[in-house]
Amino acid sequence: MSVELYNDGTHVCLAFYDLVDEEADHAVQCNQFLIADSGHGALIDPGGNMTYNALLMSMQRYFPSKELHYILASHPDPDIIASVNKWFVASPCKVLISQLWVRFVPHFTTGRDVSGRIVGIPDRGANIRLGESVIKAIPAHFMHAEGNFQFYDVKSKILFSGDLGVSLVDHNRAALPVENFDEHVRFMQGFHQRYMVSNKILRLWVQMVRELDIEMIVPQHGQRFVGKAMCTRLLDWLEQLPCGVDLLTQQDYRIPSD
Amino acid sequence: MSVELYNDGTHVCLAFYDLVDEEADHAVQCNQFLIADSGHGALIDPGGNMTYNALLMSMQRYFPSKELHYILASHPDPDIIASVNKWFVASPCKVLISQLWVRFVPHFTTGRDVSGRIVGIPDRGANIRLGESVIKAIPAHFMHAEGNFQFYDVKSKILFSGDLGVSLVDHNRAALPVENFDEHVRFMQGFHQRYMVSNKILRLWVQMVRELDIEMIVPQHGQRFVGKAMCTRLLDWLEQLPCGVDLLTQQDYRIPSD
Repeated sequence: MSVELYNDGTHVCLAFYDLVDEEADHAVQCNQFLIADSGHGALIDPGGNMTYNALLMSMQRYFPSKELHYILASHPDPDIIASVNKWFVASPCKVLISQLWVRFVPHFTTGRDVSGRIVGIPDRGANIRLGESVIKAIPAHFMHAEGNFQFYDVKSKILFSGDLGVSLVDHNRAALPVENFDEHVRFMQGFHQRYMVSNKILRLWVQMVRELDIEMIVPQHGQRFVGKAMCTRLLDWLEQLPCGVDLLTQQDYRIPSD
Repeated sequence: MSVELYNDGTHVCLAFYDLVDEEADHAVQCNQFLIADSGHGALIDPGGNMTYNALLMSMQRYFPSKELHYILASHPDPDIIASVNKWFVASPCKVLISQLWVRFVPHFTTGRDVSGRIVGIPDRGANIRLGESVIKAIPAHFMHAEGNFQFYDVKSKILFSGDLGVSLVDHNRAALPVENFDEHVRFMQGFHQRYMVSNKILRLWVQMVRELDIEMIVPQHGQRFVGKAMCTRLLDWLEQLPCGVDLLTQQDYRIPSD
């Protein structure tokens, strides 16, 4: 079942929280997103092979496969775009991903030359036109992938934040907005400290994002942050978080003894 | 065509340099590795869907599919293990990968529960028994993936270094050992400065690896380093290289203008 994040009649943002059965599949819960504008569509981080069928079916209610223009991929992990070969067959879509990963994406595919359908986003980001609307690809390098983008939908003021702001919860909880930030930290902390690369990067990113008019931050795993006050709580928390290489010492780099 | 890196009659290490046609496929050149010991086999970073068939055929000359015990994966990028679903079908192998990625690997697969075949390597590393030999999984976190391992084959003294020491060259050149280190730097520098996370991590890793008795360093893209003197040149170069987050400033994190 999808959750409608935004709908003004011509512009729609949907989130899918329950397409992975994390219990039966032993796979990490993850969210997929659809933006439709005036009958044109984009998917953000459509996921792996287990989410493909359900997402394809749901999408058709908003636009036909031939109007799927873009797959916007934050980075090339399997839970993000392992299904890309199927989408290439089912639609005329192009994949937009960091230029760092353009030549890695074909390894998901089998045989045919797909290079004309993979478009590299330069490190500085890009403005992507969808129907009458614009989606901004915003630099989020090293959070966690080296080449990494978040997608800001200008019309809805939603920031699709990829792995930033992620919480590890089940799909029932994932579909609900965060209610109490302090209570929520325990679902985020371990992940951010191990997968985010350094506090320096978090601070550069927060500094940039404070300029944006954000109504909602929606990560790719777990719960979303709704309203300016809650989004600011997340930014404040990230800004002060030591993580990744900040926390590692020689103890973490030792030859395993026999 | 494979290159024999080591062969003492019972223990064999092979490298495959030309299974990806990087020109026709527009995909990054990458190397795959096979270790066989007393009829038991492991593949290191077997690659995506385009390398699967050729690797399967070559492997059978050394051991049958039912004796493929392990896929050793440095990290979960598509050029490393996008073919994992096929290997699960064709053999009884288990995938050994950082515990950080255990719940991400199922997103490569379709439907069946594969959790019993994915084994997480703890952050400190592990000793992996193959036939009569031992392969050490050595911490290489943040080089580039957050959870990342290299594989040191104790018998051959070869370090399979994943993305560290990578050079971006075509498959003909990739199959040759590095001859002149100073000349070779230009094929490595851009990649290491953008994909490796920080100099702090490089230094911790070099400190650890200087303790190992290494005869060859074999990365997953490009050329290998043969002999102790050449391996030391690589370690010395990495130790002093600023990279990743060291080089980024607020200029790299700006909202793209309209």
